[in-house]
Amino acid sequence: MTVDIVALGVAGLAHALESGKATSTTATETYLKRIEDQNSDLNAFIKVTTKSALREAEAADQRRADGNVLSALDGIPIALKDNIDVAGIPTTGGVEAYRRATPEHDADVVRRLREAGAIFLGKLNMHEAAHGATTANDAYGYCQNPHKDGYTPGGSSGGSGAALAAGLCAGALGSDTLGSVRIPASFCGIAGLKPTYGLVSTRGVMPLSYALDHVGPMARSCKDLTLMLSAMAGFDADDPAGRHGPTDFSSALEASPSLDGLTLGYFNDLNKINGDTVDSAVYVAYAKSIDQLRELGAKLEPVGWDGYDPALVRPKAMLLIEADLANIHSDALDSNPDGFTETFRAGIEFGRAQSAPKLAKAMRLIEQVRPVARRLFGTVDALVTPTTPVPAFSFEAAMPKTITTFTAFANYAGCPALSVPMGKTEDGLPLGLQVVTPKREEATALRIGTAFENASGI
Amino acid sequence: MTVDIVALGVAGLAHALESGKATSTTATETYLKRIEDQNSDLNAFIKVTTKSALREAEAADQRRADGNVLSALDGIPIALKDNIDVAGIPTTGGVEAYRRATPEHDADVVRRLREAGAIFLGKLNMHEAAHGATTANDAYGYCQNPHKDGYTPGGSSGGSGAALAAGLCAGALGSDTLGSVRIPASFCGIAGLKPTYGLVSTRGVMPLSYALDHVGPMARSCKDLTLMLSAMAGFDADDPAGRHGPTDFSSALEASPSLDGLTLGYFNDLNKINGDTVDSAVYVAYAKSIDQLRELGAKLEPVGWDGYDPALVRPKAMLLIEADLANIHSDALDSNPDGFTETFRAGIEFGRAQSAPKLAKAMRLIEQVRPVARRLFGTVDALVTPTTPVPAFSFEAAMPKTITTFTAFANYAGCPALSVPMGKTEDGLPLGLQVVTPKREEATALRIGTAFENASGI
Repeated sequence: MTVDIVALGVAGLAHALESGKATSTTATETYLKRIEDQNSDLNAFIKVTTKSALREAEAADQRRADGNVLSALDGIPIALKDNIDVAGIPTTGGVEAYRRATPEHDADVVRRLREAGAIFLGKLNMHEAAHGATTANDAYGYCQNPHKDGYTPGGSSGGSGAALAAGLCAGALGSDTLGSVRIPASFCGIAGLKPTYGLVSTRGVMPLSYALDHVGPMARSCKDLTLMLSAMAGFDADDPAGRHGPTDFSSALEASPSLDGLTLGYFNDLNKINGDTVDSAVYVAYAKSIDQLRELGAKLEPVGWDGYDPALVRPKAMLLIEADLANIHSDALDSNPDGFTETFRAGIEFGRAQSAPKLAKAMRLIEQVRPVARRLFGTVDALVTPTTPVPAFSFEAAMPKTITTFTAFANYAGCPALSVPMGKTEDGLPLGLQVVTPKREEATALRIGTAFENASGI
Repeated sequence: MTVDIVALGVAGLAHALESGKATSTTATETYLKRIEDQNSDLNAFIKVTTKSALREAEAADQRRADGNVLSALDGIPIALKDNIDVAGIPTTGGVEAYRRATPEHDADVVRRLREAGAIFLGKLNMHEAAHGATTANDAYGYCQNPHKDGYTPGGSSGGSGAALAAGLCAGALGSDTLGSVRIPASFCGIAGLKPTYGLVSTRGVMPLSYALDHVGPMARSCKDLTLMLSAMAGFDADDPAGRHGPTDFSSALEASPSLDGLTLGYFNDLNKINGDTVDSAVYVAYAKSIDQLRELGAKLEPVGWDGYDPALVRPKAMLLIEADLANIHSDALDSNPDGFTETFRAGIEFGRAQSAPKLAKAMRLIEQVRPVARRLFGTVDALVTPTTPVPAFSFEAAMPKTITTFTAFANYAGCPALSVPMGKTEDGLPLGLQVVTPKREEATALRIGTAFENASGI
C-alpha cells in the first residue's frame, strides 16, 4: 500500500509513521528524489545533505521500532533556510562571501528540532543576507516560484516557500524581520508563521536586525505549523531576545472548525492602508475571506491602524536594519567586498552615513507601534489582513515598495502573525491571508488559520 | 497627644491616620513648615505647592471622615522629582531652558498616586536633565547632602534623597537610568527602589534614555517603599515600555524577619568588579552586611558577573543616552542653547557625532547583559552588592567614573534593584546596600530589605 508522502505534509506523515503506513526512510527518499528531479530548475535548495538525512531517517525508524519515539516530529523531513546554523555545514546566508563559512554548533532551534527527531534535508536559498524580498540571488541562482517560472517566490525565505510549494520537504524554517516568512508563504501558496518575538530562539541564526528578527515554521497546512512550532519554541536564556511563553500549541488542533466567540478586526479600505497599490485580485480574495470567516462564526469588526503609518515607519526600520548590517558584516565587507552585491553594499553605506541620534529616533518610532497593537487588541481577538498587497511578480518587474505594508506591523509589535492561502489570481498565482494576534496567542492564530483552511478547501 | 510625623514615615503615618492619631492636614503642615525652615539651605525643593497640598490634605481628611478612604496612601504627603509631570506646574527637569515648561497633563504615575489619595508637596531638585549624579545644579542651586554641608546628595534624584534624609516629606519619587534612585538613596541614608523595566509607567516623565529609564519610590524604610510601589505600579498600554507585572507587593510586609530559604549571591572581591576604587568603609560595611544577612537565615554564595564588564558597557550606555538626549532636547537646544550648561551641550555634541552603526553596536552590548542576569538568577534568588563604591563626596571633588559600577547592571537587565542603608563612615556619611532580584520579584527585594533594616536597626 503506497501513501502520497507529499500530500501527507507534517501531521499526516506523523500519523502514517505512527500507524506503520510509512517509514522515515521512505519519506526521506521520496523528498530527496523530488529534490534531485526538480531543484536544478527551482534553485530552492543551496545544499542537499543526502547522506546525513538518510542516516538520520534510519535512526528515526530504529527509534520507532524500539518504542523510543522522541516527539510528533520524529522522522519528519524538513529543510532550513540557509541563515540557520547546522554544525559542520556552511551557513551562507545567501551571501557569496560566506560560501565556506562553517559554524561549529547548531543554532538553538536546530538543536531543539534535532532533539525532537526531525530529519534535515538541507539548506534553502534566500535573498542575499535576508536583505530583500525576491530571492533573486546572484550568487546561488534565482529561486523560481513553482507556480510560474520567471516569477519570484517572495523572500527573503524564498527557498523555503518554493521548496514547500513544489513538495520538496514536509516543513521548512524561515526567518522574518519585516515579513520574510509570510511574503513567500503568500506568493507560494503555503502557510507560514512568525511567532511572538523571543519565543523561538534566534541564537545561531545570521542576524538581519536584532530587534525585529524572528524564526518561524513554514509548511503546507496550519496543522503542520502547529506541530513544528511546538518543537521549536522554548525559552533560551542565552538569547538576549529570549522571552518566556507557551511551548505547547496543541489547543489549536483540538479546536472545532467554528470560530464562535472570536472577534476579528479587518480593514474595509485596503487602499487607505496601502496608498492605492493593492492588486484587484487581492481585494476580491480578501473580501471573500472576510465572508468566509463570518460564516465560520467569527464576529467581524472594521478597524484601523490609528497612530501607525506603515509608509512612515518603513524607512526607520530600514535604517535600523542597515545599521545592524553594517556591524554584522563589517569584517567580511572589509576583507572581501566583492563577496556582496553592489545593492547590498549601498545599503550598508547608507547605514554607515547616518548619525546615532537619527537611529535613536527611528527606534523610538518603531517602538511606538506597540501601543497601537495593544489598543487594537483591546477591541478584537485578532486582525486579518491580506499578507501582501500584490501576488508574485516577474523577476523583471521592480519590487513594490509596499510589499511589507501588512506584514511589518507584527515585527514592530512583536506579535504572532500567520499567513494562510486565500485563493489565487486568474493566472493561478497564490494569495495569502494574514492573521495577527496578541503576543503569545499563537494558538488563536493557528486555530483561525486551521478553520479557514478547512472551510475554504485550499 | 502629639506624634512625630517625620518618624512615622509613610507606613506609620498611614496607621496614625487610620487610628485618628494624626490628620493629613497636620502632617502636611508639619512637612511644609520643615521645608520652609530648611529648604533655603538644602535646595532640595525647586517648587513648593503649599496651597494645593493643603487643599488636597483637607480633601483627604474629609474622605476619611466620610469613610471613603482611597488607599493606604490616602493623605500621605510626598514630593516628586522635577522631571515628572504635574498638570499646570512647570517640569524643569533641572534645566534652565525649561523653567517655564508647563505640562497640561499629569504623568501616568502621578495620576495613579493622585487616585490613591497622595498629597503632593512640590517638585524636587535634580541633576540637569538627569544627566549626572551630583545634583550640583547651576540653574536651581546645588542640592546639599543633609549629612554634610558642601557634599553631594548624589543624583540625579538628589533632591529626593536630601528631602527624605532631612525629613521634608514622607516619600518621594525619583527616576533611575543608571542608578539615579539608588545613588542618592545610598549617599543620603534612605531607601530607594528601581522597579522592573516597564512596571511603573514613564509616560509624562522627561526621558533620559528610553531603554534604560525607570521611575521608582524613595522613602525612609522598605515598608514605606512597599506601600508606595503598590500605588505606582500598573500596566500602561500607552507607554511603549509598558509591561504587565505584579501591582500588589504586600507579601513583602507579611514576611517574617527570617530569610530562611533564600540564597543570596555576593561579591567576595569588590575591587575585582570595580577596578581598585572601592572605599575602605564600603568594604567593611559590606562585609558586615553579608554576616548580618547570614545571621538572618539566608544562604550566602560568592558569585561573579561572568560576561559583564561594567567599565566596558558604561561608555556604550552613555552613547545611547547622549543619542536619545540629542533628540529629546533638540528643539530647546536650537532655540535656547544657553538654557543648558556647557557640559550638557558637550555630551549632546558627542552623541550627534557618532554613527548609527556605532549606536547599534552599543545597544547590542547592553542587551547582552540580560543573559548574564538570567544565568546569575538561575543560581541565586538575589544579588547583594554595595550600592556605590564610595560614600558622598565634596562638591569640589571630581565624581568617580565608577559611581554606577554596581547600579547600572539592573538598568541594562531590567531587574528590580533596592538600596537600603548599611551603616556609615567614620565621618557619619551613609552607605547603601543594594539588593537585585529577577524581573518582577520586587517583593523578594523588599522582604530582604525589610529584614535587613530591622536587624541592623539603621
